Amino acid sequence: MNKSADGAINVLILSAGRRVELVKLFKETRDALKISGDVVAVDISKLAPALYFADKYEIVPRITSPDYVDSVISVCKKHGIKLVIPTIDTELPVLAAAKNRIEKETGAIVNISSPECVDICNDKTKSALFFKENGFGVPYTYTDVELDEKKYSLPLFVKPRDGSSSIDAFKAETVSQLEFFRSYVKNPIVQECVEGTEYTVDAFIDFDGDIVSIVPRIRLAVRGGEILKGQIDMNKEIISDVEKLIKALKPVGHITIQGFKEKDGKMRYIEVNPRFGGGAPMSIRAGANSCEWLYRIAMQEKINPEQVKVDDKAVFVRFDDSLRIE
Amino acid sequence: MNKSADGAINVLILSAGRRVELVKLFKETRDALKISGDVVAVDISKLAPALYFADKYEIVPRITSPDYVDSVISVCKKHGIKLVIPTIDTELPVLAAAKNRIEKETGAIVNISSPECVDICNDKTKSALFFKENGFGVPYTYTDVELDEKKYSLPLFVKPRDGSSSIDAFKAETVSQLEFFRSYVKNPIVQECVEGTEYTVDAFIDFDGDIVSIVPRIRLAVRGGEILKGQIDMNKEIISDVEKLIKALKPVGHITIQGFKEKDGKMRYIEVNPRFGGGAPMSIRAGANSCEWLYRIAMQEKINPEQVKVDDKAVFVRFDDSLRIE
Repeated sequence: MNKSADGAINVLILSAGRRVELVKLFKETRDALKISGDVVAVDISKLAPALYFADKYEIVPRITSPDYVDSVISVCKKHGIKLVIPTIDTELPVLAAAKNRIEKETGAIVNISSPECVDICNDKTKSALFFKENGFGVPYTYTDVELDEKKYSLPLFVKPRDGSSSIDAFKAETVSQLEFFRSYVKNPIVQECVEGTEYTVDAFIDFDGDIVSIVPRIRLAVRGGEILKGQIDMNKEIISDVEKLIKALKPVGHITIQGFKEKDGKMRYIEVNPRFGGGAPMSIRAGANSCEWLYRIAMQEKINPEQVKVDDKAVFVRFDDSLRIE
Repeated sequence: MNKSADGAINVLILSAGRRVELVKLFKETRDALKISGDVVAVDISKLAPALYFADKYEIVPRITSPDYVDSVISVCKKHGIKLVIPTIDTELPVLAAAKNRIEKETGAIVNISSPECVDICNDKTKSALFFKENGFGVPYTYTDVELDEKKYSLPLFVKPRDGSSSIDAFKAETVSQLEFFRSYVKNPIVQECVEGTEYTVDAFIDFDGDIVSIVPRIRLAVRGGEILKGQIDMNKEIISDVEKLIKALKPVGHITIQGFKEKDGKMRYIEVNPRFGGGAPMSIRAGANSCEWLYRIAMQEKINPEQVKVDDKAVFVRFDDSLRIE
């Protein structure tokens, strides 16, 4: 049993930053399930708002520090953590590599996919190749040779292979724009522009690899790569396609998949983030409560996917709020 | 008297969008002052989150529509509005031009500066010229001739003259980057890069032109031009400099001023937004409550600046929240 002697399930949110909603949802879910336990948040900065919504918080070194994994283990031991939740791309390879050690030394479960899965997801060129080789829709991805020989049709999309939040992502409308952005963007991937309906799909896979929930959301408005307005759309074809994608990629825990549904009705996948995305609270509030699945897994319960009820067509809007911390 | 027969002061927030905090602060201030009245929000879209935090809302045409001012007047009449609050740059010239008509036809006060002031603020080239001609610090602003003749030192900053939210704002580190961004950015302004401490200054000027409050805030972290983390810094030199700037520019109501304090201790001004900025709630919550000043003006009270108490060094952090609307 993973429950501690007093039955408490303490959850650790890593790189908590601005994940205020996620912290609040873990606390709400814990209360709704009548479980005891703390939601503990860590960050490198005392200015991370999510720290102030957690039950307890700690400041930890940067992910790039050689002490990072030790500090996570130390926080897990100090607070009797049963579940470890990463939230940002840069910590995924570190945690995937350290998963066994953290779990062995602390008894906590780490919500992280295999190093192989994380490696594919954290590099957009590897992701595109994976989608293509496994028969999933993907925007046409150009090789350097094709680009050098001008074997392409404009417009094209140029972005960093390891980028996030739409930073340094540019649409090239002309040859000179393309040439400029290829040298301006570090380590770029160049793809055809997809113009269909933009979707994020939240999914949860338990640690036996069984799919619990798949929730496609239309991205009605986006700012800096983050969703501002979204609508749940339980489209059967997308769900079925994503189910196949998950079976090929084999991620675990909460993941978010980005893509476009093109005019032909088929999905073109852009990337998979094997972690909670910023908009995940929309799917959670609509009924696919990954926080609940994680608590249940920590209690060694098996979740029955047939009992998951999602409010199709629910619309969510996001906005800023502020908190005084000093 | 501007109070209606029943004494209610109804406030209209235009282009409410994501200004949830502003709507909430007007409601909180109204309650704290024990005034009656509604906070009414309007937007072009039913997906604007702020609508759902207002007491009442209406959907209006786009600002570019010939019916926009008529629709504002119509909403003012329908809801007995006493105060009209714009929130986005594109509506400022329209409202500045229509201020007299709206006030005459509805009896409401419009929180808007003169067309001349708005014209200077909405064009970064005109703003830079204004700062320079009036003896205020400003990043060196290059003419096309200087740029064509390569009479500059890199890096330089290229952005649209009428831009906002850091969209299409680029740092050019090389000659080829500069040449590219000069053609890529529509209607660009090219300035030296300033590297000091980034400040936003919130100020409130009553409709007689008297300054009520000046609150400098350090921008500790920024995303997409919007502040994420800020600290109040009641720096006397900045306050005194901004006081002179306000006396030269003659804006009214709530304004936000952006600039950098350079190593020499002097301010270099980037722009003035003669409206509530996204981070204005930080200064309001720290004690410079522009919502209160506006209610008092609507009640024909004069505000005594000496009674304004601001919590120096207060730190605020911003985060996303979401709301289900359908």
